[in-house]
Amino acid sequence: MRGAILHAPGDIRVEDRDDPQIEKPTDAVIRMSATCVCGSDLWSYRGINESRGPAPMGHEYVGVVEEVGSDVTTIRPGQFVIGSFFASDGTCPNCRNGFQTACLHAEGMGALGAQAEMLRVPWADGTLVATPDVPDDELLPSLLAASDVLGTGWFAAVQAGVGPGSTVAVVGDGAVGLLGVLAAKELGAERIIAMSRHESRQRLATAFGATDIVAERGDEGVERVKDLTNGIGADAVLECVGTSESMSQAMSATRPGGRVGLVGVPHGVSLDGTELFYSHVQIGGGPAPVRRFLPDLIERIVERRIDPGKVFDLTLPLEQAAEGYAAMDERRAIKSLLLP
Amino acid sequence: MRGAILHAPGDIRVEDRDDPQIEKPTDAVIRMSATCVCGSDLWSYRGINESRGPAPMGHEYVGVVEEVGSDVTTIRPGQFVIGSFFASDGTCPNCRNGFQTACLHAEGMGALGAQAEMLRVPWADGTLVATPDVPDDELLPSLLAASDVLGTGWFAAVQAGVGPGSTVAVVGDGAVGLLGVLAAKELGAERIIAMSRHESRQRLATAFGATDIVAERGDEGVERVKDLTNGIGADAVLECVGTSESMSQAMSATRPGGRVGLVGVPHGVSLDGTELFYSHVQIGGGPAPVRRFLPDLIERIVERRIDPGKVFDLTLPLEQAAEGYAAMDERRAIKSLLLP
Repeated sequence: MRGAILHAPGDIRVEDRDDPQIEKPTDAVIRMSATCVCGSDLWSYRGINESRGPAPMGHEYVGVVEEVGSDVTTIRPGQFVIGSFFASDGTCPNCRNGFQTACLHAEGMGALGAQAEMLRVPWADGTLVATPDVPDDELLPSLLAASDVLGTGWFAAVQAGVGPGSTVAVVGDGAVGLLGVLAAKELGAERIIAMSRHESRQRLATAFGATDIVAERGDEGVERVKDLTNGIGADAVLECVGTSESMSQAMSATRPGGRVGLVGVPHGVSLDGTELFYSHVQIGGGPAPVRRFLPDLIERIVERRIDPGKVFDLTLPLEQAAEGYAAMDERRAIKSLLLP
Repeated sequence: MRGAILHAPGDIRVEDRDDPQIEKPTDAVIRMSATCVCGSDLWSYRGINESRGPAPMGHEYVGVVEEVGSDVTTIRPGQFVIGSFFASDGTCPNCRNGFQTACLHAEGMGALGAQAEMLRVPWADGTLVATPDVPDDELLPSLLAASDVLGTGWFAAVQAGVGPGSTVAVVGDGAVGLLGVLAAKELGAERIIAMSRHESRQRLATAFGATDIVAERGDEGVERVKDLTNGIGADAVLECVGTSESMSQAMSATRPGGRVGLVGVPHGVSLDGTELFYSHVQIGGGPAPVRRFLPDLIERIVERRIDPGKVFDLTLPLEQAAEGYAAMDERRAIKSLLLP
């Protein structure tokens, strides 16, 4: 089969890879209907995360089941399925608590390389969710978005405590931040402030439910959020970037007693205990347990109540994965969808 | 009047101070029925917090109203009242959100010095809560505990998300930690693990509702908590100390998706963003908005459903405040009550 391989920073090539096989009785193998490039893939692409030599890439996937192992009971060949970036057994105490990304038997899907024609999925029963029928092609982008960025934005909103009537601010206008806006809207937020300097992203944020746009950053951005929130800050802030600057902006834009949902993977961030204490802000998140939300998200998508697939503004054949990465790296695209 | 003054680390003296007067129309002046020494007073007493020369001390108080300013409408002379360590107007957006310690007009009571015969209380209508009647003397210790340590332990439990059926761990066996145990019990926790090495404090923790005692600290203590919690950690952890060691212990003892309620004032603590992220733990707290909980706590006390006053294991005349500090500093006493 064909699949994307990162050879060195900036050097993505689509090459022949061995077809994946069932290795354990709990595995499934799926044929990819669509896959995509994640903002987090750019950390390796840019050389900020150390690369381990030639490495398969990609962890977002929707497809049709080809084959299942002998212990798989709920997933069948021919089903259209969606999974997420961690395989999880679905039965351990952390899975039962809805934190499948902390599954005691979790396996990261990135190492298996979903930017390819086929993919082995461990713990198929725990990891994959089948749609009622094989969906129309027009739903592919939205279902693929559920695999990571929608589920991650949703988790950010849940961790930030968004509920009916909430005032929300979203730091980060990548796909996750934009879908955090959509999640906040769906969860009943009354006011949603999107922090974005880019006109095309501002438009998408507004389409997803943002009521206010703040283009300023840093202290000035925080002051604008406070102007919009009785002078005290937002009830709930979604941190969808992961730098020291964005974290500080998120903490400062939250009102005392408010919460920050943290889904931007932190890079070189440290929090001062005294500042955290006196801010009266709660903070937490992590790799989103997307699996928890998939059944609900799939239902909203197939009923056409939400259209998160709008975050894909570039669609390419898998063979052109390198251009998909470059376009996102240069911010010419929000998110690149790849068709095998 | 007489009042306690910190002259230098380790040097507390009870001396003559000017009687407090009504300074603003929103003030009240109360005559102290009882006051006490707080664990946080020891930070200055030990010279860890910088001392600003001779300074009045104390921020916990119950007493009878002597006089009120012309704008005070709900508090009347003769009432028995309880307040907390921040005066708050009760009307600003943060007060309305239940975060009175972040009141836009907050005034710290420590600077006014509650370890004295009388006390001026700013924002009397917002700050003070009157009991239905002047209570029996036997209720004084419990009502005084509500002024800080009970309310602080309660806030830790609320911030940690304690509810019916929760598994809780409490880091810190000072008065706040012990009353965190009581709070967790009252809020419906099923299993409460008190981390304590001191036999007398273990006994009190058990009396307040602890189901398990863990005497080990650090990694070993965390392992013991995991042994008791399906191998994953507690749902809710109360951090009632504020050192790097205790914070690390609290974070590690919390299960993915669990929460740390932070009420130990951090000293030299910094949190690594990456560790926080991958722990899947939410953390937050701050100076407890005790005022939010006072009406409920007072009701539980006057109905004799809880007896938080048990944390006072030393009662002295105000004149012997120095011995009250020394006994706590040397861990001969959990908490010292002072009678003017």
